[in-house]
Amino acid sequence: MSADPPKIALIGAGKAGTQLGRRLAACGLAPVQVFSRKEEKARHLAEAVGASFTNDLAAVVSDADVYLIAVHDDAIAAVAGTLSTVLSHNPLVAHISGATPSTVLAAPFPRYGVFYPLQTFSEDRTPDFSKIPICIHAPAADDLALLKNLAERLSDSVHVISDEQRAALHIAAVFVNNFVNHLYGIGYRLLTDKGLPFELLLPLIQETAQRVQPDMDPSRMQTGPAARGDHETIARHLDSLRSDSDYHAIYLEMSQSILTLIMNSIQHADRRNH
Amino acid sequence: MSADPPKIALIGAGKAGTQLGRRLAACGLAPVQVFSRKEEKARHLAEAVGASFTNDLAAVVSDADVYLIAVHDDAIAAVAGTLSTVLSHNPLVAHISGATPSTVLAAPFPRYGVFYPLQTFSEDRTPDFSKIPICIHAPAADDLALLKNLAERLSDSVHVISDEQRAALHIAAVFVNNFVNHLYGIGYRLLTDKGLPFELLLPLIQETAQRVQPDMDPSRMQTGPAARGDHETIARHLDSLRSDSDYHAIYLEMSQSILTLIMNSIQHADRRNH
Repeated sequence: MSADPPKIALIGAGKAGTQLGRRLAACGLAPVQVFSRKEEKARHLAEAVGASFTNDLAAVVSDADVYLIAVHDDAIAAVAGTLSTVLSHNPLVAHISGATPSTVLAAPFPRYGVFYPLQTFSEDRTPDFSKIPICIHAPAADDLALLKNLAERLSDSVHVISDEQRAALHIAAVFVNNFVNHLYGIGYRLLTDKGLPFELLLPLIQETAQRVQPDMDPSRMQTGPAARGDHETIARHLDSLRSDSDYHAIYLEMSQSILTLIMNSIQHADRRNH
Repeated sequence: MSADPPKIALIGAGKAGTQLGRRLAACGLAPVQVFSRKEEKARHLAEAVGASFTNDLAAVVSDADVYLIAVHDDAIAAVAGTLSTVLSHNPLVAHISGATPSTVLAAPFPRYGVFYPLQTFSEDRTPDFSKIPICIHAPAADDLALLKNLAERLSDSVHVISDEQRAALHIAAVFVNNFVNHLYGIGYRLLTDKGLPFELLLPLIQETAQRVQPDMDPSRMQTGPAARGDHETIARHLDSLRSDSDYHAIYLEMSQSILTLIMNSIQHADRRNH
């Protein structure tokens, strides 16, 4: 690894690719080129970061040190396959996905890795990138050092994570992001169905997230009808959700799971005391 | 209603009662007396707000204008029943619960209502009370005006909400607080099982909550395997959750519900276009 910043090509200009490209540029690591199948997206990001752009994988620069693949999971293997026919200078190729094993890059490229920023990216929000955990992995020590150096220039939170760990992390992200957002959506519909403004729930949503602590199991703060075994309230809620089978099923499943957790922790404490 | 601030007695000194009592005092409406079954709790809050205290319902002051009942849901009716044998000056009696109908107070008291601050209260966190929605209800216009006046001195977000609306609000609060917190707990266990620090998920948890907008259905921001119909990832996740029947069931239920929602919105758009 030279003292000069590595030359980076960014393959993909969706939400994650765009935010990553902007952050790279803000940290003095502007990609030399942006690829996107959609020329407009490639151009838009390239102009913002002072890079060239292309919508043709065959025209991707052949002299970058690192290629960051930021395309959808289902396209990573195909894009990598095509890229490998274009690049012959043995670069480091890493994807930025939580869901895809690093090993899909192993067949086309001797030097491969993962550079996964663990966050949900929206078009209209600029995240505080310095706080975003970047989860890196590469089988070769030199390549890992290169990714680590890159990551540490973008974020204060850099973690070496195996493929197996990253798979668990991605499932956990589905629970705390996708599923949580779906619960927010259910809250929205329960309120608007009764003519109530959704904003009533916003302080509760914010506080529920903000009181989560790095070193504490959130279950220790679990409250509500299920946590206190209040069967009467649970039964009343289930009854009023009967007209929507989805909400009813989710309410039941979540309540059962909370009850199970409480029972397990009671049994655990009981075993410890005897 | 006189120009003087109303004399308030606070019946209950748990988490919600304590935060409410402190806020009342901070807004120049310190309760004259605090009751709690647990004398220590009553004393602690009373000393903080300059009130008298008692752990005996028969010793509750008999000349307050408003009695705010801040005890557990399952105790409200009994506490109100006992109070009604002590108070003969026809005061306004309101509980602060989201879950209990106002009408449990109607039998013991001619003047009754609800004064429900919609937030989750912790012992060690001081919420920004000015943002907390206070949901009020009273059948008599004068009583409603009194509660409204009180609420507006504590918060910028005051809402007149019927019992039926409040019931829906409380169910929604269970979804976006209790169930969301349970999903955070699942995230915690998925990570710690793989030796990963829970703090990796915190920026994602915060961002997921912070991007929620007052006027937008959160479902419009729904992402993840279920939202994009990525059956391969869903199947892989379900397979790796097979050892925990709760997580497996929740994953399946939530994914099905998200898929249903997406299908409904596609059908809705299709109908609109034809």
